[in-house]
Amino acid sequence: MKGYAMLKIGEAGWIEKERPACGPLDAIIKPLALSPCTSDVHTVWEGAIGDRHNMILGHEGCGVVDEVGSLVKDFKKGDRIMVAAITPDWGSIEAQAGFGQHSGGMLAGWKFSNFKDGVFGEYFHVNEADANLAHLPDSISPEEACMLSDMVPTGFHGVELADVQFGDTVLVIGIGPVGLMAVAGTALRGASRIICVGTRKKCREVATSYGATDFIGYKDGPIDEQVMKLTDGQGVDKVVIAGGTVETFEPAVKCLKSGGRIGSVNYLGSGTYVTIPRIEWGCGMANKNICGGLMPGGRRRLEKLGSLVSSGKLDVKKLITHRFKGFEHVEEALLLMKDKPADLIKPVVVL
Amino acid sequence: MKGYAMLKIGEAGWIEKERPACGPLDAIIKPLALSPCTSDVHTVWEGAIGDRHNMILGHEGCGVVDEVGSLVKDFKKGDRIMVAAITPDWGSIEAQAGFGQHSGGMLAGWKFSNFKDGVFGEYFHVNEADANLAHLPDSISPEEACMLSDMVPTGFHGVELADVQFGDTVLVIGIGPVGLMAVAGTALRGASRIICVGTRKKCREVATSYGATDFIGYKDGPIDEQVMKLTDGQGVDKVVIAGGTVETFEPAVKCLKSGGRIGSVNYLGSGTYVTIPRIEWGCGMANKNICGGLMPGGRRRLEKLGSLVSSGKLDVKKLITHRFKGFEHVEEALLLMKDKPADLIKPVVVL
Amino acid sequence: MKGYAMLKIGEAGWIEKERPACGPLDAIIKPLALSPCTSDVHTVWEGAIGDRHNMILGHEGCGVVDEVGSLVKDFKKGDRIMVAAITPDWGSIEAQAGFGQHSGGMLAGWKFSNFKDGVFGEYFHVNEADANLAHLPDSISPEEACMLSDMVPTGFHGVELADVQFGDTVLVIGIGPVGLMAVAGTALRGASRIICVGTRKKCREVATSYGATDFIGYKDGPIDEQVMKLTDGQGVDKVVIAGGTVETFEPAVKCLKSGGRIGSVNYLGSGTYVTIPRIEWGCGMANKNICGGLMPGGRRRLEKLGSLVSSGKLDVKKLITHRFKGFEHVEEALLLMKDKPADLIKPVVVL
Amino acid sequence: MKGYAMLKIGEAGWIEKERPACGPLDAIIKPLALSPCTSDVHTVWEGAIGDRHNMILGHEGCGVVDEVGSLVKDFKKGDRIMVAAITPDWGSIEAQAGFGQHSGGMLAGWKFSNFKDGVFGEYFHVNEADANLAHLPDSISPEEACMLSDMVPTGFHGVELADVQFGDTVLVIGIGPVGLMAVAGTALRGASRIICVGTRKKCREVATSYGATDFIGYKDGPIDEQVMKLTDGQGVDKVVIAGGTVETFEPAVKCLKSGGRIGSVNYLGSGTYVTIPRIEWGCGMANKNICGGLMPGGRRRLEKLGSLVSSGKLDVKKLITHRFKGFEHVEEALLLMKDKPADLIKPVVVL
Repeated sequence: MKGYAMLKIGEAGWIEKERPACGPLDAIIKPLALSPCTSDVHTVWEGAIGDRHNMILGHEGCGVVDEVGSLVKDFKKGDRIMVAAITPDWGSIEAQAGFGQHSGGMLAGWKFSNFKDGVFGEYFHVNEADANLAHLPDSISPEEACMLSDMVPTGFHGVELADVQFGDTVLVIGIGPVGLMAVAGTALRGASRIICVGTRKKCREVATSYGATDFIGYKDGPIDEQVMKLTDGQGVDKVVIAGGTVETFEPAVKCLKSGGRIGSVNYLGSGTYVTIPRIEWGCGMANKNICGGLMPGGRRRLEKLGSLVSSGKLDVKKLITHRFKGFEHVEEALLLMKDKPADLIKPVVVL
Repeated sequence: MKGYAMLKIGEAGWIEKERPACGPLDAIIKPLALSPCTSDVHTVWEGAIGDRHNMILGHEGCGVVDEVGSLVKDFKKGDRIMVAAITPDWGSIEAQAGFGQHSGGMLAGWKFSNFKDGVFGEYFHVNEADANLAHLPDSISPEEACMLSDMVPTGFHGVELADVQFGDTVLVIGIGPVGLMAVAGTALRGASRIICVGTRKKCREVATSYGATDFIGYKDGPIDEQVMKLTDGQGVDKVVIAGGTVETFEPAVKCLKSGGRIGSVNYLGSGTYVTIPRIEWGCGMANKNICGGLMPGGRRRLEKLGSLVSSGKLDVKKLITHRFKGFEHVEEALLLMKDKPADLIKPVVVL
Repeated sequence: MKGYAMLKIGEAGWIEKERPACGPLDAIIKPLALSPCTSDVHTVWEGAIGDRHNMILGHEGCGVVDEVGSLVKDFKKGDRIMVAAITPDWGSIEAQAGFGQHSGGMLAGWKFSNFKDGVFGEYFHVNEADANLAHLPDSISPEEACMLSDMVPTGFHGVELADVQFGDTVLVIGIGPVGLMAVAGTALRGASRIICVGTRKKCREVATSYGATDFIGYKDGPIDEQVMKLTDGQGVDKVVIAGGTVETFEPAVKCLKSGGRIGSVNYLGSGTYVTIPRIEWGCGMANKNICGGLMPGGRRRLEKLGSLVSSGKLDVKKLITHRFKGFEHVEEALLLMKDKPADLIKPVVVL
Repeated sequence: MKGYAMLKIGEAGWIEKERPACGPLDAIIKPLALSPCTSDVHTVWEGAIGDRHNMILGHEGCGVVDEVGSLVKDFKKGDRIMVAAITPDWGSIEAQAGFGQHSGGMLAGWKFSNFKDGVFGEYFHVNEADANLAHLPDSISPEEACMLSDMVPTGFHGVELADVQFGDTVLVIGIGPVGLMAVAGTALRGASRIICVGTRKKCREVATSYGATDFIGYKDGPIDEQVMKLTDGQGVDKVVIAGGTVETFEPAVKCLKSGGRIGSVNYLGSGTYVTIPRIEWGCGMANKNICGGLMPGGRRRLEKLGSLVSSGKLDVKKLITHRFKGFEHVEEALLLMKDKPADLIKPVVVL
């Protein structure tokens, strides 16, 4: 079968590979829609997860079941399905502890285009199908389902980590697609004021439609100073970090109230240390909790978050700015993600 | 009245001061027992909280009520009382949010020997007496009550921040008096294995009696490597930090399991940044929460933690290695705390 | 001064009383707007809290500060303020434990028209003014502020007790004003599907505008059977109870998933026992938590929930179906609440 | 193979059955030690779970792996193992939600001697072996391992449901083996005062050794009145229910402080309703949470709780009052459990 793969660090291209084998608990899926992620860009062109050779890329997509293993009960050939970027081993000790995303080791619930071939193939493999697939209802289109693989659950996990409460003032750093979902999730958890860091016009428009109330720009001075000014020196109750670097925690801590929380879902690709400013962290005693996490995956969460789309409570179509038709456009979509034109949020390829 | 005070950075001595005035909600206390804290040493000789002039030191003690304000209901002259180092303004927004220790601003629930005179005077002042004093029962001696001002609630707060659960393996970094209370609290929350970092013989003995199961030394290699070896590469479920510097979070993160928590109650006196190792923090996604906090204060917590002493579930006398009789020995006790002889854990002065 | 009072069980009327005295921590408020509550009706005509004589009614209102005590710092004569129905003693042990609503005893944070005169007077008294008043911003009208006294915080507390999460299916029992706020809060916490029990046309319309997705009626069969049918036998993740009787927990438990939660904010006025069906409660082992609570009060929560109104995230005006102008209309408004015409949700009297 | 079975309601005896078949994820275990549970008695002689025919009894035991399925990775023939009474389907939606004990339906994580043959056979079957077995270390004897199947995790779950905190006063109702483990768990979570309801001398002795501080008897008056007297009218912070009936919640609610929690792990075998006293439950508003749950099962919890035994923090041997040698004594042990002589806590049969 054909697949679009990382050939080595800095190089991507089409390859031929064996169709994946289906274990007794697994499923083989034929994609209906696919979407590239900034992580794919980092993986190939920045070597973010180390070198890989001829590894098929992609972890956002949905499809049709082509084959299931002998022990799979709830899915059969022909079923339309959603799948998350993170597909835990549910019996693992880590999953039993509530952290399936780290089943088998830190971040090891992330398998697609990390430890095995991703979804940008004519077929892709899903482990523990009953626990990691969800039926795709008619009320969710394939392109919407792609947003449920990673953008929605990652952005919303940031909101959960930050533990947003009714009436909170929340700072969301980064308004790319994950940040926009963090904005939507923050609004859906009942925040009153949502201050966003980001400058792209298109993203600000969409953020506003998701509930953002204020915007600040990286270039208009330190983030924390802008936030303190906007909040009359009060600071914010919570921060969701969905962009930036290891240095982004500095302004986040500085403008966070004592007793507040930072929820970060940003993949930190470089730097030796994440730097927490000692003084503003109360010399270690400010009760400002710092939580950084990988989205939990699996079927239940897909169904839960999917139901927000089905019920019309969450409109993910606003994220999709570029649409392609045909598998062969995966490359073009990925390169678009790499180039990031001003009007891009997410491209989707419908097959 | 007489008081033992910070005269300026680097200098301490006896001074004469007016007996503090008693507002309508307040109480004036005559000490029964007092104990110096390493913080007093940091305050005077390291300038940890900035310069202060003729500020009476001390935030650990108990005493007898000498005067109460007109609105105080539950205490009267002659009552024997306990008081915590942290005495919140309970009506403040921060206290309503559950963070009285930050009432009026970050760390501002800490008033003694910070924003006002401390307890090392012939009399000391307590704000909101009904909410910040607790009756001293016969079952708690004055010297034990001194341990309930700061050592017990701070050590135990570390355990709460780390959210220790039944059967956890916990690393406690630092086994000075706060660290020892963290060990006791960790054991009292049901941990199975308690690995301690600390080398002093006396402290190790006491730690063992509180439930410590393993010891490692700073000088025997990186803490995280020693922990990984002891745990067959598994790492620990939780870390309580009760000693060290801004660099101590590095080994803590390195040997912490994904999904774990760090609870720190160490006052970080210097350094620009607390440094979190990016890779071992899962590039920001390991779900290793970092929580650093100041002990909550107030009457309820004094009563709760005091009841552990009353009921015999917690023996704080093991912390008290040096005893003095007479107010004039406060200086000697403080200098002892500064010099830290090998057999010292805590000195107490009984008046 | 004049006040509208409970004269005795079954009888209400205008009385003359002394203007309340202002203690050093207190404030005396002159009302700007007032609203009667079903509780007032229960208090007078059902004797729900026992007998009271010449006690001024009312616990929903806002006003202008007329006098403050000598220790009050943040408010002064002439300030426009909001106040909640529950005004805790913030230094109490219960408030320190996070349950100010029970400060001084079970439900004892509820003082207005319970332990002291309520707000339906020319003046009313507020204890601990700095902690229990909030400034009324221009962005909130007096009539909206009345909804923030009780309807919003009570409805939202039900949602907090039920611990609604992203994508939950939630059953809200009762869509009077508190139930409608429970619907709004459920939607604001990210539920996907909100099934409401209630039949009044006006209430259904408003519930729909707040996010309700399905409706069932008491008269169309057992609630639980209707819910099971609507959910294909799955049941709901959470239940918020905002109406009914001691028997209402029965269908709630029956249609709740294992691991779910019931949050109840309904005042149960009669019956010896709340009845929990043993079998459907898993013979005691279904992990279906039953939480019933009184709204927490105080300034912080007023400011938080008020910010939802200020920011336009929550429109409480939809609750107000009947408006009166002039203090003398308090009686008419209360009788309207007693008679409950079909088109009534809440009446407000603007002074 | 031979097994000791429920023949029908009211009758138990030895039967011959096929050795269970081993699916690809499963294991077949040969018992090393077994222990009957009061539930076995209820199952047979009270028909607590309905009628069953020739169903092998027992859900407490440990053993040696005799066979594993082709997909099992961590266990092999000859391994000594522990197993919990509850063996969830870890990929199920319920387990993903954190409630494996209800995987596949309410209480359906409980399979042994409920939906399939129990452990009182020459061999028994365990589903999802990698996730539901734990290696039996040398530091835990087979008879101790039997206590880790149900008594420890159930008693400790009650403590978790009640959310015991440092310094709490806790009422534990029932001091049979589960109640004794609730006492031990309450002490291990840092309670100060543990008031127990139970009269048997042997049980009181063991409870005292686990940390109980006070005892009251059912026959000495209403439980709540005795508790209020012992606590000077304050009541308790938490209640753990490990015995009694549907009526036991009444005194529990009555003597529980507002803001408290009840954690129940008692199997309620009869009665239509669990009765919650309306007035003392604050007319539904006392914030007294009522939580009743089934112990979570699985490997991680076995390892965690087992580590408390290994490390010497929890001595479960005190529970074992009667010891038998030889499989054939299972009947005798069960009948002993049925007869409950005064000196019995738990019998164990070592094979």
